[in-house]
Parts: sequence; C-alpha cells; structure tokens
Amino acid sequence: MTTETFIDLEADARVRADDRGHVFHSWSAQALIDPLPVAGGEGASFWDYRGNTYLDFSSQLVNLNLGHQHPDLVRAIQEQAGRLATIQPSMANDVRGQLAREIAAVAPDGMEKVFFTNGGADANENAVRMARIVTGKRKVLSMYRSYHGNTSTAITLTGDPRRWANEPADGSVAHFFGPYPYRSPFHAASPEQETARALEHLEQTIILEGASTIGAIILETVVGTNGVLVPPPGYLPGVRALCDKYGILYIADEVMVGFGRIGEWFAFQAFDVVPDLVTFAKGVNSGYVPLGGVLISDAVASHFDTVSFPGGLTYSGHPLACAAGVATFEVFRRDGILERVRDLGDRIVAPRLAAMAQRHPSVGDVRGRGLFWAIELVKDAETREPLVPFNAAGADAAPMTAVAAACKKAGLWPFTHFNRVHVAPPLVISEDDLIRGLDIIDRALDVADEAIA
Amino acid sequence: MTTETFIDLEADARVRADDRGHVFHSWSAQALIDPLPVAGGEGASFWDYRGNTYLDFSSQLVNLNLGHQHPDLVRAIQEQAGRLATIQPSMANDVRGQLAREIAAVAPDGMEKVFFTNGGADANENAVRMARIVTGKRKVLSMYRSYHGNTSTAITLTGDPRRWANEPADGSVAHFFGPYPYRSPFHAASPEQETARALEHLEQTIILEGASTIGAIILETVVGTNGVLVPPPGYLPGVRALCDKYGILYIADEVMVGFGRIGEWFAFQAFDVVPDLVTFAKGVNSGYVPLGGVLISDAVASHFDTVSFPGGLTYSGHPLACAAGVATFEVFRRDGILERVRDLGDRIVAPRLAAMAQRHPSVGDVRGRGLFWAIELVKDAETREPLVPFNAAGADAAPMTAVAAACKKAGLWPFTHFNRVHVAPPLVISEDDLIRGLDIIDRALDVADEAIA
Ligand SMILES: Cc1ncc(COP(=O)(O)O)c(C=O)c1O
Ligand SMILES: Cc1ncc(COP(=O)(O)O)c(C=O)c1O
Repeated sequence: MTTETFIDLEADARVRADDRGHVFHSWSAQALIDPLPVAGGEGASFWDYRGNTYLDFSSQLVNLNLGHQHPDLVRAIQEQAGRLATIQPSMANDVRGQLAREIAAVAPDGMEKVFFTNGGADANENAVRMARIVTGKRKVLSMYRSYHGNTSTAITLTGDPRRWANEPADGSVAHFFGPYPYRSPFHAASPEQETARALEHLEQTIILEGASTIGAIILETVVGTNGVLVPPPGYLPGVRALCDKYGILYIADEVMVGFGRIGEWFAFQAFDVVPDLVTFAKGVNSGYVPLGGVLISDAVASHFDTVSFPGGLTYSGHPLACAAGVATFEVFRRDGILERVRDLGDRIVAPRLAAMAQRHPSVGDVRGRGLFWAIELVKDAETREPLVPFNAAGADAAPMTAVAAACKKAGLWPFTHFNRVHVAPPLVISEDDLIRGLDIIDRALDVADEAIA
Repeated sequence: MTTETFIDLEADARVRADDRGHVFHSWSAQALIDPLPVAGGEGASFWDYRGNTYLDFSSQLVNLNLGHQHPDLVRAIQEQAGRLATIQPSMANDVRGQLAREIAAVAPDGMEKVFFTNGGADANENAVRMARIVTGKRKVLSMYRSYHGNTSTAITLTGDPRRWANEPADGSVAHFFGPYPYRSPFHAASPEQETARALEHLEQTIILEGASTIGAIILETVVGTNGVLVPPPGYLPGVRALCDKYGILYIADEVMVGFGRIGEWFAFQAFDVVPDLVTFAKGVNSGYVPLGGVLISDAVASHFDTVSFPGGLTYSGHPLACAAGVATFEVFRRDGILERVRDLGDRIVAPRLAAMAQRHPSVGDVRGRGLFWAIELVKDAETREPLVPFNAAGADAAPMTAVAAACKKAGLWPFTHFNRVHVAPPLVISEDDLIRGLDIIDRALDVADEAIA
C-alpha cells in the first residue's frame, strides 16, 4: 500500500477544479492556498492522484487514531448504515447506549453519563454550559497556548491566535498561564518549581478574578496543537485541589489526547487526577463519522435529574457515529492499542527524538508521551529563540515551511505549528513505518540546521 | 413495512437500561423522561421493540427529508466508507467538491462557495463570523420566535425559551418581532399591513440599535419549530432592501426549510429574495451523517481571498457526510422530489387542514407550504387564546400532551410545540400514508375539542 503509486491526472484536475471553484476552506485566505487532492488512504498512509504516497504523521488533524480505512470501523459503519443510519436524540438507541456504557466503563467511578455532540467545539460548549448552570457562576478560566474549538465560547476559551479575529465572543472568559518547563513563564529552574509556581499563579488568578464568579477551569490534559505540553508532576492534582478549595468545576479537554493518543483511554488517567467533566471527540471513533461528547461526573449529572438541561443538537448521539465508536473500543481491546502506544513511545520514539536533539543544533527541546510528541526548533540552543516567531506567516515562517517541504518530498506528511514539528501518527502504524517516518524527520531537520548555520 | 410488527422485549430492556444508565439527553430533566427504544425504520415509518410502528410526521427533528433508510443514501454511505471515510478539511476531496458544486448549481448566480460544518448551530456561528468580519460590525439582529442552534452565538440568536438559561452568551445580539399574521404583533388587519408594519418595526429597530453597529440580520426563511410562520408577501424583499439601505448582511437560516421541505431547493427561492449568506443542514443529506454549511455570496467569499477566514472544524466537509449529500441531489432530481412536495402540499395537505379548521373548534389557524404545516390550537376561536400557555410544561401542557398521546396511540409520531401540531413527514411519504396520517391527526384533534368544550 505505501508502495502503491496511483496516478489519475484527469481526476486530479477535476477534484482540484471543484475544490477551487466551490469549497470555502477553514483558517485560510482562499486565494493563497492550494489544497492537495487526496485519492485514498490505508493504515498510516494516504496518497494523491499524482503518484505520491505520504506517511501520515499528523493523523490528519490528530483524529485518525486507528488510521485510514480501518476495516473494522468501515465494516461497523456499513452495517449500521444498513440497519439504522440515524434516529433523533430523544429516542433510546442501541449503539448510542452501548457506546455511552463503554465510555463510562473505562472512566473513573462516579462518571456514568455521556452527552454526545458532533465534535470537540460543541463538546466544550456543552461542558461549560453544565458547569455554569451547576455552579451558578459564569466565568471560565482557560490557558494561554490552548485550542478549544471554533464556536463562540470555544474560540474565546482558546488561548492561541485563532481567537483574535473572533473577539469578544463570550464575555465571561479569562486566561492564565500554564506550565511550560522549556519556556517557563514563572522563571522556574525545575519541573517541581514549575508546578509550584504555576499553581501559585493560578491561585492568584482565581483570587483576582474572583472565586465567586468562576464556574469552571478548562484545560487540555496535555496541551495539543499549542505544543504537546505535558503537565509536570503534581500540576493537575494541584489544579483539582484549587478547584475544590474554591468551588470551581474542573473540565478536562481531551478532544485531542483522549482515546489512546498518549496510551491511556483518558489522558488524565496518567496524571493522578479526576476532573468533573471530560470532553472528547476525534479518537473516540477516529473521526470516521463526526462525533464528540462530554463525560459527566455523577454530581454534575444529578443536578439535571429534575432541572432541565438547556442544550441539544439535532445529531446528538448519532447512531452511525456511535457504531464507529463501539467498533473503536473493540479494536482497542482486541489489538492492545493502549499498551502498543506506550511501548512504541517509550521504546522507539523517545530514544530517537533524544538522539535527534543531540544531533541537531536546531532542536531545542523534545517532549511527549505515547505517540504524541513535539520537536521544538530554535535559532540558538542557549537563548532558546524560536526558529520562527510566534504566529509567523509567509516569509517569516520560511524555515518551518522548508522543513515541512523536506518531509513531504521524502514521503511524510508532517504536523507543524509555529516553530514545532509534532509526531502524531496513527496508533496502528507499523514499527517499520514509525522508524522510517522518524528517519525522514531526522533528515528534514538538517534543513533547519542549515537555516541557523 | 408499516404493517410489520417486530417484538424483542429482551432487546427493549437492554437498550432502555443502557440509555437510562449512561445517555445524558438534550433539553431534558434526566429523571423525568422515558426515551422510546427504536428498533428500526423505513421510509415514512419507524418501529420500537414492542410491536408498535409509527408513521413519522416529524421526520425525526425535521431532518429526515428522504425518510428512514433510503436505499440510495445507505448505498452512498456504504460505498464512501469503503473508499475514504474521512480526510481533513485542508485537503481537496472529490465528494466534498462535488457536493459544494451541486449546492452552488441550485443556488442563485453569485453564490459559488460553500463552507461545510457539522450541523445547523455551527453553520450559523460561521455565517455570523463571516458577516461580522466583512462588515466590521458585531451586532446581529434576530427574531423573537426563532431557533438557531445550541452553541453560544446560535443560542443567543435564538428567540425562544431555550435561550433563557444560557444568557448572556453572546453580548452582541438584539431581537425584533417578525410577522405573524394570526397573532399580529403590529395589530395589522391584513397580510399586506402585516408586511408594511413589520418592516417599519424592523427599520425602527435598526435605527435605534444603530445601523453602524449591525453586521447582520438572521432570519429563518419560514420560521420552523416556533410556528411554521410563512412570511407574508413582500416581507423578505423588504428585509433585503433594509439590509442594502443600512449596509447589513442578510443571513437566511434554512437549516429546517432548505432542501425540499417547502418544495424548493432553498426556501428563499419562493419569496423573491436573495440573501448574502444561507445556512443549511438537516435536509442536505437527511442527517444520515452530521452535516451543515454556509452558502456564501461571492461578495462575502471574496473578502477572504487574501484575508484569512478565522474559523474551522475538524470535520468540515466530511467525505462520508458529503457522499450522502451527493446522493440526495441524485434522488431529488431522479424522483422529482420538489415537484412532489409542492403537489402533495397543494393537493392533499392544504385542503385537508382547511377542512379540519372548519370541523374542530380547537383549531385556530392552519398554515404552511409544501410538506411543512402548523395547526395552531386555541381555547377560543374568537379570543385566539392558545390551548396551552406559551412554554407550558407539566400539568399546564396537559391538553397538548393528550393530543400527542392520541396520535401515538393511533400509530403516528407527531411534532408538537407549545400549542401547535406540525405536519412535517418525510418528503417520500406515500400519498396513502400522508392521508392516513392526516386522518389520525384529525381524530386526535377531538381530544383538543373536548378539552375546551
Ligand atoms: C484540544 C482540542 N479541543 C477542541 C478541539 C475542537 O474540536 P472540533 O474541531 O471537532 O470542534 C480541538 C480540535 O483540534 C482540540 O484539539
Ligand atoms: C432553523 C434552525 N436553525 C438551526 C438549527 C440548529 O441545528 P443543529 O441542531 O444541527 O445544530 C435548527 C435545529 O432544529 C433549526 O431548526
């Protein structure tokens, strides 16, 4: 498959023409993009119509945890489509209930109910809705360097530049700084100090914003797009303690890191903490059918036993999407996906990235867990000046564009963001392909080394 | 199929147990609901596990325009799942481009681009985002008695009680009154007067809110859930003229009424008007896979040729969803769905509802178009006092609950809202089933007559 070369220039032209003529693309200036027509995919690879095959080290938008065209997911969708493609949310439905039960079964005790949505943004919107109503407090604190989705509250929660052009969308959000040991906002000298100071900063923020006004704190358990920032030991339990101290609900955004990305069902399970609300999407069914949701603690859920929950979507608990979710659980269990991710992360990715950090002067930091890693590129290892400026575009971003181009040329589709290359392949990638992909990135980093030479 | 009786009490119990144990439902107090386990569906009917089959006069949430388990849609989904279930929005994809082209082809000239979303709420969020950026003005006007979705901006735009528990979610929204001839907010004596006065009211609202602050006006072309309010002649062109006069963009929310519900591709095409932005979902693929979107006028789209559009979703332009959309176009064309809807509406529904209005003292008004109608129930034809109060629940809503129960007992699943019964069956319903369903509603209205006797 990865050696297959498929060529159909006529189809390429047709797909390109329809796209350029009629598809309005996300996060883009429409005349400045040139979307690649994709013809097919399988496992960890996809291919275009011009004979190029790419090893997918981005899992598309870090959603394709079980890879392209996983036969069990495809079959589950085909069967469910033939059985009952959809039914409205107010009905009870077998696969909808089954998936909710499966999710609750791998969650900590005391989290029994699931509200389904179409994706990550609306999951966060509804988690915030629950927290605001249960606490009677509207303000939500979220981190700088975060992404929570594109609808009004979700984009306001977001702590990256995608928020800027949309402000002010939700008037009741404030941002704080999270831990980032490599570029400590707290001038900390160790992970322990980073944790202590980050928690002190958060507590000060709570006090100054007013605990009596704050209904929730939302965090990506491991910050995803904004840097694969793994929380230092003790940070998340510390956040939990502050939430308890001040009567605030803790929402874990696990849209990107849930369902196996770091080798856990839920990423928070690796960090000795239990949130009140957990949002998910992507990995729950690899995005084969749009699906997201909120896993709800019993304390929050029971508030709505007799009080009506004021939220809903036409496609909440969509059977076709849920069927792909049920199949995902089967595959994860049968194929030992979580164990595999932890093993590949520890045994293959970690040592190889550490070696790259040694070898390449442009590599400032490598960090991650499971099959979720970042390589942070710098101009100077001493000053840690980023290879390209924050939010760089066009000519300013040239060195990163060149690294990405070198990856693509060698047959790897990378995930790059600002001055980082992320490593986020499908969790089913073969050991050979994983090594081959890391080698491609390794060689592409020569381009960054040259840029700073 | 509608005569099939399927019984599986064990499955019924299992589905019910999973649902009650783990599924958190929309718009509900969780302990006060009893969701019906649905076993299957076909065409205009669905059935439970206890031998009951229902004629679906709600098309679920008015999304199942091509009915349950339409073989062409099922096949399109199965084939696309086997070919390429998903690919990220930044790629070009054949079915994504094809569906966008199909939509543009049935739209007026000058609307060539489509931004895809997962459903109706995020379609409205993104249309508002475009309007705010293009005009540089944040405020949006929307109607009382409207529904626009559950995310923060969409729920604030909403003009029904679902908004209340979520306020204030978007600080830049103001509501105005739309035309409602049967209960004229303007004390109008004729549809013409209703139009004139409604437009005068809207212009006054624009002036007092400040034209320099208003980026968009959003309207359901035919108000859906809040009453099947068909705009009186000249109203929508009048809105268009006011938008042009004051530099405001006109967003048509066609999530419920687009794609055939009133016998048009887009409902606005029946009202001699062209909006700047059109949002859709539901009927575009009958909701077999979550899909929504924004049809964009060239003037708005071209603003983003060199300026980046600051919005996006992981599942924008989802291939599986788009494949079901492409199949929808094929079926609509092959089977003459639009013509069929207009014919059935004019020939069957209109005269029968008119007869019911004659026969039942509880029927205050009937109105609609195509396969989208409302029967408005009153205590007194003279005073027009609604059969149940606005937003009634529990005992206050008893007469409406009784009407709905009578429908269900006779084998019809109704769409009821406040003091209304809507008629919104799948567009593929057979003439026999349509007549049978209308007869069931006719008899159920005896219950309302008795309640006011
Ligand atoms: C952490 C996180 N939260 C939320 C979202 C939004 O999800 P969606 O694009 O499905 O709305 C994303 C998407 O990348 C994400 O990474
Ligand atoms: C007119 C209208 N707009 C928007 C929506 C929201 O759509 P969704 O539930 O897919 O978000 C609906 C849903 O019923 C609707 O009827």
